Amino acid sequence: MLNKLYVALIHYPILGREEQIISTAITNFDIHDISRSCRTYNIKNFYMVSNLPAQRKIVNNVVDYWREGYGSTYNPNRKDALSVFKIVEYLEDAIEDIEKIENEKPKIVFTSAKPREKAIDFSELSKVIEEEEAPILILYGTGWGMPEEIRDICDYDLEPIRGNSDFNHLSVRAAVAISLDRLIGEKVLNNKNNI
Amino acid sequence: MLNKLYVALIHYPILGREEQIISTAITNFDIHDISRSCRTYNIKNFYMVSNLPAQRKIVNNVVDYWREGYGSTYNPNRKDALSVFKIVEYLEDAIEDIEKIENEKPKIVFTSAKPREKAIDFSELSKVIEEEEAPILILYGTGWGMPEEIRDICDYDLEPIRGNSDFNHLSVRAAVAISLDRLIGEKVLNNKNNI
Repeated sequence: MLNKLYVALIHYPILGREEQIISTAITNFDIHDISRSCRTYNIKNFYMVSNLPAQRKIVNNVVDYWREGYGSTYNPNRKDALSVFKIVEYLEDAIEDIEKIENEKPKIVFTSAKPREKAIDFSELSKVIEEEEAPILILYGTGWGMPEEIRDICDYDLEPIRGNSDFNHLSVRAAVAISLDRLIGEKVLNNKNNI
Repeated sequence: MLNKLYVALIHYPILGREEQIISTAITNFDIHDISRSCRTYNIKNFYMVSNLPAQRKIVNNVVDYWREGYGSTYNPNRKDALSVFKIVEYLEDAIEDIEKIENEKPKIVFTSAKPREKAIDFSELSKVIEEEEAPILILYGTGWGMPEEIRDICDYDLEPIRGNSDFNHLSVRAAVAISLDRLIGEKVLNNKNNI
């Protein structure tokens, strides 16, 4: 359903350079850019997931400035964009929050820039998003990507974005923007009129 | 032509909050995110345009670090992405550089988040990109957008990106990523095989 979509950006557990499990540092631009993209495509909540209390504290300071501080009147569009933003400790907290809102567990979508067998393609997942009654949560990784333990709990595994070159190192901000545009684009929920 | 595409991000002349002409500050993330998106979609050069010498100096320091300094071995993908990056003083310098490379003036595309009459839509411009023999330069604004004096010299005026909500404040990084994906996607130059 186009009105039950959620996005999460994972900072833990994440793969490090040597495939070890790490916590990545939060990037300020991710807060703003991804909130703005999510708000554009009608995503209900954008969860940033970090297990590090000091990182969550910094994020809350930044977000408070734009939601309630001087930033909220200086640039009200930022405030509007951040209305979809939530910071949580673990992925399970995001899942639980969605369950509380929707009274139903979300279907979870894994994403990665790495080519994998049996991944669902953009047009197939786009159809699922239109037809599925349950909420849908799309996960994006940081660092060197999300570990298998996250992929194991996912219902769908989305194909990587390819351009028309041999280079596949988009920023996560660009990857979220492009994939939301491919999956949702300008589709408007029309069940009131058409059903 | 898919192999003669160029992108420029304009920091001067730009509209300010009160519609006055200003120079905007360069954002470090624009250098990396937009270079990575451009490299993914086979853009030949990404020009950052700033008339401020101090800003261009900082940019050159950053870019040198990733192209030739420690960054080039720590993260070679950054070096690869920045192979398309150039910083120039004025838009005219970018146009001149393209003319020198291609022996032909580029057709220029204006973009903006503001709704305008008579804008060309994404699928039409996508067709132009495939069929046009001249190089094409796509311009993106910062601040409160590009002034009319830039629109006046453009050959095409591209429609704004819309999502499926009432919010149209994407970051320029997301706007570049989405528009390149809509215009180029996975299209590969195939004139050798098909013509």
